[in-house]
Amino acid sequence: MAASQRKDSLNKQFIREVAETVRMGKEHEVEVADFKDFKMPVYDGDDEEATGIPEAAKRLAELFASAHAIVISTPAYNGGIPGTLKNTLDWMSRISPSPFTNKPVLLLGASPGMLGAVRGLAHARVSIESLGCMVYPEMFGLGKAHQAFSETGRFVDPKNQERLVKLVQHFLSFAAKLQSRN
Amino acid sequence: MAASQRKDSLNKQFIREVAETVRMGKEHEVEVADFKDFKMPVYDGDDEEATGIPEAAKRLAELFASAHAIVISTPAYNGGIPGTLKNTLDWMSRISPSPFTNKPVLLLGASPGMLGAVRGLAHARVSIESLGCMVYPEMFGLGKAHQAFSETGRFVDPKNQERLVKLVQHFLSFAAKLQSRN
Amino acid sequence: MAASQRKDSLNKQFIREVAETVRMGKEHEVEVADFKDFKMPVYDGDDEEATGIPEAAKRLAELFASAHAIVISTPAYNGGIPGTLKNTLDWMSRISPSPFTNKPVLLLGASPGMLGAVRGLAHARVSIESLGCMVYPEMFGLGKAHQAFSETGRFVDPKNQERLVKLVQHFLSFAAKLQSRN
Amino acid sequence: MAASQRKDSLNKQFIREVAETVRMGKEHEVEVADFKDFKMPVYDGDDEEATGIPEAAKRLAELFASAHAIVISTPAYNGGIPGTLKNTLDWMSRISPSPFTNKPVLLLGASPGMLGAVRGLAHARVSIESLGCMVYPEMFGLGKAHQAFSETGRFVDPKNQERLVKLVQHFLSFAAKLQSRN
Repeated sequence: MAASQRKDSLNKQFIREVAETVRMGKEHEVEVADFKDFKMPVYDGDDEEATGIPEAAKRLAELFASAHAIVISTPAYNGGIPGTLKNTLDWMSRISPSPFTNKPVLLLGASPGMLGAVRGLAHARVSIESLGCMVYPEMFGLGKAHQAFSETGRFVDPKNQERLVKLVQHFLSFAAKLQSRN
Repeated sequence: MAASQRKDSLNKQFIREVAETVRMGKEHEVEVADFKDFKMPVYDGDDEEATGIPEAAKRLAELFASAHAIVISTPAYNGGIPGTLKNTLDWMSRISPSPFTNKPVLLLGASPGMLGAVRGLAHARVSIESLGCMVYPEMFGLGKAHQAFSETGRFVDPKNQERLVKLVQHFLSFAAKLQSRN
Repeated sequence: MAASQRKDSLNKQFIREVAETVRMGKEHEVEVADFKDFKMPVYDGDDEEATGIPEAAKRLAELFASAHAIVISTPAYNGGIPGTLKNTLDWMSRISPSPFTNKPVLLLGASPGMLGAVRGLAHARVSIESLGCMVYPEMFGLGKAHQAFSETGRFVDPKNQERLVKLVQHFLSFAAKLQSRN
Repeated sequence: MAASQRKDSLNKQFIREVAETVRMGKEHEVEVADFKDFKMPVYDGDDEEATGIPEAAKRLAELFASAHAIVISTPAYNGGIPGTLKNTLDWMSRISPSPFTNKPVLLLGASPGMLGAVRGLAHARVSIESLGCMVYPEMFGLGKAHQAFSETGRFVDPKNQERLVKLVQHFLSFAAKLQSRN
């Protein structure tokens, strides 16, 4: 899932590239969620008491819980995690018991600037780990992302392609190990 | 302003104590804003293009812009800034030119745990500085805040009282210097 | 290993408690390293070119590489990772190929204040993950650590004991999974 | 001061450019300190008790204390503040009373990568603020810094030049205000 509401979001392009990569591996199924399908109001403790957790938060939590591994691509807003993503995490964190314990997560970020959303990734990581997820150590912040994709939506630079394929493979192997009975 | 929607929020109590402190100094006027009066939808770039910045974000930005100094008390959610506060900052950051350049800000946090919202403060600080505000170096994270206030809403422990009075004085002097013509 | 040079360090007490916990489980061997045995000069790129990586950094890297799992307990200095620990990581990061890839790490912190070194943990985590280690999502920041241990060096509060035992068990199971052939 | 020991450090080039900028303004004197002149051992609380704070830490603290404003350019090592710089801050933080209270600081960073040392800046900022310094909100992380300077050591791209001149002017005006009697 890309943590962006925009239709032509760079993070959505990044996530599509991930999905393509997984599909080409032919070992795993992949589902791309649209953040827009999970819009919810801002968190309010009083509202929670009165009417409970929004249905959209519950649906997204279920989707995440049902996945063997989660990939999130997020922009950075104002040097940190987007409020929209954080708000979604805050609502989902109110579900008990947590459906996220030990869930493997890969964090990506795309931005038109040189920083590649790296400061958003840093803050997102803390909160997603605080939900109990196992966030993969390597993250991929894609800078100058508006120049990174061709018109067909594929990486222009084969190095980016290579890096993503390797990263996704390593992450999926990490995820498989975590879910092994051992 | 307390960055909490809850009616009986610990951060609201903390902010009331700040207001009382400023009033007792008799040198400055103080206004306590209610975060609930500035509820807005989650940020969506497409919505922004279609219908602009929400009126609540504009009103809060104007209020902040009209103040000589801003005090925000924020909880930490999931090891970071509350999504509600971040979402508000994200919307307000879309106002151009920025009404926040060089605006002095004091950050406080209250939480029932021992950490006193300190991880939320760390992330909030980054984004508020990224808006151009001058965030005062010292922050006050009030741990075990549910035991910190008496029934009349004042600090039980005189050390907290003392620390807050000193901090507010230093901050106001910092704010005055920043606004001097020099 | 406790990331403290002091003989009577709270973090050393914390690590001893971890070691005791692992020993009682009777499934794993445990070795407590003394940070003082790995003292090295501050990093200097010119020195590295002239005389290479300090022997102490190489020895510690080998010790870490030979372990199935690493537990580090670190104080916070000035709101961040101690310079001593960071300097050690910086030197060890110059060893190629990295001996740390996918190495499971558990981060603890002890401090006399209420924050329990939590801000040091946050920064330490970033850099240790950046070395390629798999840092366990849950961390344990022990506040008021100077009152936490009895004269015999055991936890006064059985809740701390319980939390540590559970955390160490979960971490060791995580570490075992990561090292499974799958 | 550049927080790098290397003779041909990119951060030293960045700092020289700052010095040149200040000199051209003809309003302020500027002194460039060489980090290599302030080498000190790693922090050790037992050593501190036995022999006190290293002379190099005291000298640097005096130099900083005597300045009206401080500019530090720092690389990022392993996603954070260099251990060398952090170790220096840790030692200097042991000087009491703090010579840094309210001292204006501008943080810069240069790196050959695209991130421009921005993750090092984020961690450095926290600790320098925690010493009581007033860190200027805007920071300048210079990415691809190995291509940024001409052979004569000046900026190749006039946009970088412009940005730095403006930033330094704004910072010096901020510093002057902070030191006004009001």
